[in-house]
Amino acid sequence: MGNTMQFVPGLEGVVAVETGISFLDTVESEIVLKGYDLIELSKSKGYLDIVHLLMEGSLPNEAEKKALEESLKKNYHVPEAVMEMIKLLPESTHPMDALRTGVSALSGYDKDILDRSHESNLNRAYHLLGNVPNIVANSYHILNGEETVEPRQDLSYSANFLYMITGKVPSEMEERIFDRSLVLYSEHELPNSTFTARVIASTLSDLYGALTGAVASLKGHLHGGANEAVMEMLKEAGTVEKFEELLYTKLKNKEKVMGFGHRVYMKKMDPRALMMKEALKELSEAKGDNTLFEMCEVGEKIMAQEKGLFPNLDYYAAPVYWMLGIPIPLYTPIFFSSRTAGLSAHVMEQHENNRLFRPRVNYRGPRGLHPND
Amino acid sequence: MGNTMQFVPGLEGVVAVETGISFLDTVESEIVLKGYDLIELSKSKGYLDIVHLLMEGSLPNEAEKKALEESLKKNYHVPEAVMEMIKLLPESTHPMDALRTGVSALSGYDKDILDRSHESNLNRAYHLLGNVPNIVANSYHILNGEETVEPRQDLSYSANFLYMITGKVPSEMEERIFDRSLVLYSEHELPNSTFTARVIASTLSDLYGALTGAVASLKGHLHGGANEAVMEMLKEAGTVEKFEELLYTKLKNKEKVMGFGHRVYMKKMDPRALMMKEALKELSEAKGDNTLFEMCEVGEKIMAQEKGLFPNLDYYAAPVYWMLGIPIPLYTPIFFSSRTAGLSAHVMEQHENNRLFRPRVNYRGPRGLHPND
Ligand SMILES: CC(C)(COP(=O)(O)OP(=O)(O)OC[C@H]1O[C@@H](n2cnc3c(N)ncnc32)[C@H](O)[C@@H]1OP(=O)(O)O)[C@@H](O)C(=O)NCCC(=O)NCCS
Ligand SMILES: CC(C)(COP(=O)(O)OP(=O)(O)OC[C@H]1O[C@@H](n2cnc3c(N)ncnc32)[C@H](O)[C@@H]1OP(=O)(O)O)[C@@H](O)C(=O)NCCC(=O)NCCS
Repeated sequence: MGNTMQFVPGLEGVVAVETGISFLDTVESEIVLKGYDLIELSKSKGYLDIVHLLMEGSLPNEAEKKALEESLKKNYHVPEAVMEMIKLLPESTHPMDALRTGVSALSGYDKDILDRSHESNLNRAYHLLGNVPNIVANSYHILNGEETVEPRQDLSYSANFLYMITGKVPSEMEERIFDRSLVLYSEHELPNSTFTARVIASTLSDLYGALTGAVASLKGHLHGGANEAVMEMLKEAGTVEKFEELLYTKLKNKEKVMGFGHRVYMKKMDPRALMMKEALKELSEAKGDNTLFEMCEVGEKIMAQEKGLFPNLDYYAAPVYWMLGIPIPLYTPIFFSSRTAGLSAHVMEQHENNRLFRPRVNYRGPRGLHPND
Repeated sequence: MGNTMQFVPGLEGVVAVETGISFLDTVESEIVLKGYDLIELSKSKGYLDIVHLLMEGSLPNEAEKKALEESLKKNYHVPEAVMEMIKLLPESTHPMDALRTGVSALSGYDKDILDRSHESNLNRAYHLLGNVPNIVANSYHILNGEETVEPRQDLSYSANFLYMITGKVPSEMEERIFDRSLVLYSEHELPNSTFTARVIASTLSDLYGALTGAVASLKGHLHGGANEAVMEMLKEAGTVEKFEELLYTKLKNKEKVMGFGHRVYMKKMDPRALMMKEALKELSEAKGDNTLFEMCEVGEKIMAQEKGLFPNLDYYAAPVYWMLGIPIPLYTPIFFSSRTAGLSAHVMEQHENNRLFRPRVNYRGPRGLHPND
């Protein structure tokens, strides 16, 4: 066993997986996705291209993209009973918890639930990619006593998603920016949620279970939950001056500032954040309101100066979602919805070359006690 | 980073956690639980003693045990709406999936869901320890169109659990053996489900989410699902001769035989299995039917001879549960219910000394592709 028995908190730097899906190359500053640079992809390709790349292994031609879109649209319908279940949840339920419960409930509708073949996992993934935006948007409406919004087959995948959330057909710019955010959130190597999904899948448990676990992971404030925390902070501050104050207070109190830092980048700005920063600029100009953009830039400067920390994707995705009119409690569910693509690819890869995850511990407790002493 | 970057499939032998909860000491052949030997504990202590040990850090005196029992009994009631949700699930839903959905739904009732303090986690754990047996037993009844069985305050925790499952008040022997199985399943270092729960908890996600993920993990056939697979195999065979045949066929086809092998013991019999083997003998004698016991012994011999593999707990827990009149699809949910104690202890430990789990990958895919080439 030798020095593999050394304890590394949080498994930092430990290689837990061999993968052909993605890789954070910190030397070349590249988020590699099936051989492509995610940032380059995000400039000319849309979310469905990325879904095809992740699920089928290649970028689609026009016909393939059309076919993929059709197959997702066929999966827009969420079983009535699942929506009824969500109606039974107490109002105080967190949207991520409603989503977790909804994804978990879907498994009962899968006739081939025991089948772990590539084909069967792929169908399951398309089922989820079709269903999840609907569950995300409408569980929010339900928990808030609002009317649900039926999916619209005449809109693109991303436009329909945004439409189900806001009840309004988005402009070209809104659709494009929302779609880009989905591209950027789609896949990112082995963050906690993806690791969770692979650990679960390694018992040969199914895709629904693995993704249910991933929702639970993403909910945490150190992970996906950060985008909501960022927006709460920006909203609470409201002005550049107040935001400065708030940040300095947090730093003085040694509180973590959400939206900064990343296990793998740490000393560099997350390149995805830069893309969302540009989107925020575009939205701010179009809507004639620069407040959030200015606040974010000032925050960025302060954190770099004071802590040498740089924004991660969540920092700039949060104000972008705000300007798109998306309610804050949906930011993390949307992150999950987009990541359904990457997560499914990882679960499929895990099932196709599996070894059970079962690490060990260093025991630091007492020894030699006896119950009847 | 050095040689921590070496890839170890399944993290075998990698230390992922420092813990004061439990440890599989393969040198001393001891399952250490808070300083005690689990097998020694199982001979004189009951499940509630173990719950107290795991939750409060010490074995209880009589008054403490009484108080613990009262506090669990106060938590027997599952919110009506959660049971209504389970009624909405399609009949074909796997009981582990119903359980996963039920545990996930419980979070909405927690008024302090954002509080990660020890006190608050402890309350949450008692809530789950009270609710889970009820959800396990009654979601099975619901999915099978049977009447639900209300918990009975006049029975012990384990007798009530078995009563809710079978609808019959168990005999002293049945209660004692069932309770012992819960002791043996209560905690076992860092199996996949416990690792899953800690990985999820490390994002600062809550106990409900971490345990929802653990249910998903336990469902897999390489983990908790094995006890059900064992019983299906024994049932399918029905006689010693047919079981021999079935095993030799599986071995010839290089199929894995469920109930054998373990990442950590591998070359030795799981000491918990030995305890359940004794229980099986007692039950067989009392009921005057040795068939299952004989089948299991023969299977044990064949697997040792042919593969050098030894039974794990699931191998002997399965026929014990069968002889207690428990429906097969409940074996893994019961395993989870018992493990709620250990899992909660691990999540609490993780929250109290946290570092986000975020390992790395070895990338084995292509590089240097461009979207518009
Ligand atoms: C993402 C994150 C968990 C990665 O952290 P990690 O690799 O475990 O690193 P640590 O939390 O150990 O942080 C290392 C140091 O940087 C500091 N640090 C890291 N992120 C920080 C932040 N956002 N604000 C203030 N300080 C931070 C830590 O306090 C620590 O300092 P110390 O050594 O003086 O205690 C961490 O950066 C964080 O909590 N960020 C905020 C949450 C967030 O935005 N998450 C979304 C990520 S996509
Ligand atoms: C528990 C388990 C997953 C641990 O396995 P692991 O540490 O990952 O070990 P591996 O699966 O790599 O097995 C090592 C070798 O033993 C063999 N082996 C392990 N368990 C076996 C079993 N139950 N039946 C037949 N062969 C088995 C493997 O085929 C492998 O042989 P090979 O090297 O010739 O391929 C494994 O023993 C297993 O699948 N058992 C059956 C399921 C079960 O009972 N699980 C409950 C555990 S509490």
